[in-house]
Amino acid sequence: MDKTESILPVALRLGINSRHEPLIFLRSDSPVARSEGFESMSRVKVEVNNKTIIATLLIVYSDLIKPGFAGLSETAWKRLNITEGQRIKLSHAPQVDSLAYIRAKAFGHELNKHQLQEIMRDIVEGHYMDVHLAAFITACANNNMSHEEILYLTEAMVDAGETLTWPGDKIVDKHCVGGLPGNRTSPIVVSILAAKGLTIPKTSSRAITSPAGTADVMETMTKVDLTFEQLKQVVEQHNGCLAWGGSVSLSPADDILISVEKALDIDFEGQLIASILSKKIAAGSKYVLIDIPVGPTAKLRSKESAQALAKQLKATGDEMGLKVKVVLTDGSQPVGYGIGPALEAWDVIGVLKNLNSAPQDLKERSVLLAGELLEHAEVVKPGEGLKEAQRVIESGEAWDKFTQICEAQGGFTEPPVGCCKMNVNAYKTGYIRRINNRLLGRLAKLAGAPADHASGVYMEAKVGDFITEGSTLLAIHSEAPGELEYALEFYNTHKEMIIIEEEL
Amino acid sequence: MDKTESILPVALRLGINSRHEPLIFLRSDSPVARSEGFESMSRVKVEVNNKTIIATLLIVYSDLIKPGFAGLSETAWKRLNITEGQRIKLSHAPQVDSLAYIRAKAFGHELNKHQLQEIMRDIVEGHYMDVHLAAFITACANNNMSHEEILYLTEAMVDAGETLTWPGDKIVDKHCVGGLPGNRTSPIVVSILAAKGLTIPKTSSRAITSPAGTADVMETMTKVDLTFEQLKQVVEQHNGCLAWGGSVSLSPADDILISVEKALDIDFEGQLIASILSKKIAAGSKYVLIDIPVGPTAKLRSKESAQALAKQLKATGDEMGLKVKVVLTDGSQPVGYGIGPALEAWDVIGVLKNLNSAPQDLKERSVLLAGELLEHAEVVKPGEGLKEAQRVIESGEAWDKFTQICEAQGGFTEPPVGCCKMNVNAYKTGYIRRINNRLLGRLAKLAGAPADHASGVYMEAKVGDFITEGSTLLAIHSEAPGELEYALEFYNTHKEMIIIEEEL
Repeated sequence: MDKTESILPVALRLGINSRHEPLIFLRSDSPVARSEGFESMSRVKVEVNNKTIIATLLIVYSDLIKPGFAGLSETAWKRLNITEGQRIKLSHAPQVDSLAYIRAKAFGHELNKHQLQEIMRDIVEGHYMDVHLAAFITACANNNMSHEEILYLTEAMVDAGETLTWPGDKIVDKHCVGGLPGNRTSPIVVSILAAKGLTIPKTSSRAITSPAGTADVMETMTKVDLTFEQLKQVVEQHNGCLAWGGSVSLSPADDILISVEKALDIDFEGQLIASILSKKIAAGSKYVLIDIPVGPTAKLRSKESAQALAKQLKATGDEMGLKVKVVLTDGSQPVGYGIGPALEAWDVIGVLKNLNSAPQDLKERSVLLAGELLEHAEVVKPGEGLKEAQRVIESGEAWDKFTQICEAQGGFTEPPVGCCKMNVNAYKTGYIRRINNRLLGRLAKLAGAPADHASGVYMEAKVGDFITEGSTLLAIHSEAPGELEYALEFYNTHKEMIIIEEEL
Repeated sequence: MDKTESILPVALRLGINSRHEPLIFLRSDSPVARSEGFESMSRVKVEVNNKTIIATLLIVYSDLIKPGFAGLSETAWKRLNITEGQRIKLSHAPQVDSLAYIRAKAFGHELNKHQLQEIMRDIVEGHYMDVHLAAFITACANNNMSHEEILYLTEAMVDAGETLTWPGDKIVDKHCVGGLPGNRTSPIVVSILAAKGLTIPKTSSRAITSPAGTADVMETMTKVDLTFEQLKQVVEQHNGCLAWGGSVSLSPADDILISVEKALDIDFEGQLIASILSKKIAAGSKYVLIDIPVGPTAKLRSKESAQALAKQLKATGDEMGLKVKVVLTDGSQPVGYGIGPALEAWDVIGVLKNLNSAPQDLKERSVLLAGELLEHAEVVKPGEGLKEAQRVIESGEAWDKFTQICEAQGGFTEPPVGCCKMNVNAYKTGYIRRINNRLLGRLAKLAGAPADHASGVYMEAKVGDFITEGSTLLAIHSEAPGELEYALEFYNTHKEMIIIEEEL
């Protein structure tokens, strides 16, 4: 029942960022809205160039959209691969059959492999609205997923995206179960492992709720949005890469689920496990080291919960042919001095270049993880990893490898330095007793991180340090004076982010 | 930390219908987006005229919004009560504390009265995104709510909206647990009860997924979007009204939850109970009759599930001081001939005017319900309700009352008749064996109902009728020829909506 070409609306690029959910804007008096009986928030099938997407409709009662046109958000525009002036065909979106499985899960049923595969495929193909994703996440949070379900979910996430394969067996990766500002070990660990000849195709996320992700940090020094082909080429030439995962389609269902999880602030362990492992399996890794910082304001708050998670990660990895090793680390305070993309990049450079000013805690943690990974992949004997990792840094091999990778990704540039800086002084004399990672993270974000690369917080003191009233506790860096003010006001009303006590 | 007036963006009315979720459109290069570090889909606090709303942000990278402006959707515009040219203050939305209770429910905890009150208040004040509502609905679906939780939820829904009070004790209402096309007894029952002098402040919904709601049907004959004051006046003058519930704020949290439930297609019994009862309690009713049609394609599919629901409705009503009576009715096929706003209105008029052409099943069901309600409110003796209800119709008193109510609501007009009609003939000779309510409802919607008032389906045969091949089975009515075609194609591919068999 094709309509005559002339009544199909012409696509208009609105330049609206609606993240992963495509939007279409249609006049209330347009023939297609009337004949199809579309309502606002209807799901609409949009067809052009043999491509089809499902978009959420917003009905427009003004001249924002001119008669004969239909506006598309950026996600819709890009997925349709359309050019200005093309006509699009609109109809009611078909029913999404896999929603029945989400309902089944909501009512307590266990899902099988086929059902989870269908759900992940529909997520990636954009067949769900965010409310459906929220229902899936909540349903899974509620009744803990069985071991089989977690396994199937992991497989389904891998299958719903692209996968990479590499020659040889020594394909390694590392992952940190976030929550610790400044814990930027990845660029250093990748440089050490790649320098040692292991293949380490590292993809990282941008910050979602934190002041910086590894992709944001790397972006202050090189290009991180590589194509699939570019990423392969960099790794083939230099054994490793430090790319943004968002531009290569490894476990894309995971990225979409995470964005809704953040809005809900609901995490469920099953998805966390599937999220971590599916990315690594899709990237072609065989040996993975997972860093779980434990501390009162880290993601994992107790050793027991971290150990339970570690057990599940290992068991699920085993069944998928991925050798998982877990290291529990100190999550009681930020790592390094910098919090924010460029400030963390300067810390990384300092460690790799063996500068005296480099943060020793970041170096120690990086060589610990790199050493563990060398041992885990059986390229050094047990007990020799740490020393070897240290040697690779101190010899300059890691720095050479890091700059090679940056050059291959598009050229190395020094991280930017912000225009504005303000020191925050200690409010009393004493020992630094406790640091709240979450509040410090918010402080860095209020200063402008991660969007403003040079913004953030520079720590001048660590837990256990003795500090005298009036001396510098931390510095706020920003790219605009207004943001300094915002951040300072937040610090002044949240001084408990750094507790100073007279006795340690 | 107020910004200077001049950098605040000027509000622009975009005329976009985003239903209950307010949207704000902001240029990526606007000073406030940059200084606040806003991202697409951030929650933003919008302040003007001492009013505050929380809106979802969409970042615009084009000239759709001119520099210095911020676009607002209709919901945002109306809630702020703003005029063109005013400047608005934008900041990050504060954390919504009651989200923690939704998370608690998702992890299986029981909620107390205070927590449910907070959640309902935040829903009504627009503090949640749809994903949060989806999480609440899913969390409640999963672990059946306790009797206390349902009670607290009902109370919280009432408390989060307006309430009506009426003199006297004989305040009655009726409700039908949907799912049956054409089951338009409300206008008739209200007319009978109001004619008998009982107070019946009936508010109804528009269709959400069905081809017509009572508000849509009444709208073909009179004005239904009354203000709170107008509604009170009509009831004070004529004992009853037939208004749209959406324009008076009785249990508004329920309306918002329902719209997300429909998108999820997840219903949970606790919310259904709270939804029905909260509306009636807020409207000031003391005696309520609830019609539960039971049938394979009705909402309730088995007598057992209907009885269980009836028991819960009565128990919860009791504790809230509302006397609930439940009648289980035949839900195996549509009621009356018409399916669609105007076609159902004609059926209602036929019954009230005692026309020979009136559908007898609609009359019988209406007098049954009216009779039960007369007995339930103790205005007639047990066993005398049905006869009395019949008398009120046949004497013309009900029709008089109906027209009085319509006149008071804004004037009575005859329902419209569509331009186009197409008969669908029986595909074989035999008895009508089964009718699928859901498929018939979709057929009427494809013809244009409920948006096109005159569109829909007119049934020429009922279950049990003998019909010869080629004689008329039903007629499709529409306001445009294109829609007839859509509907016909759907009928031709779904003939199982009416099963004809040679033997009964």
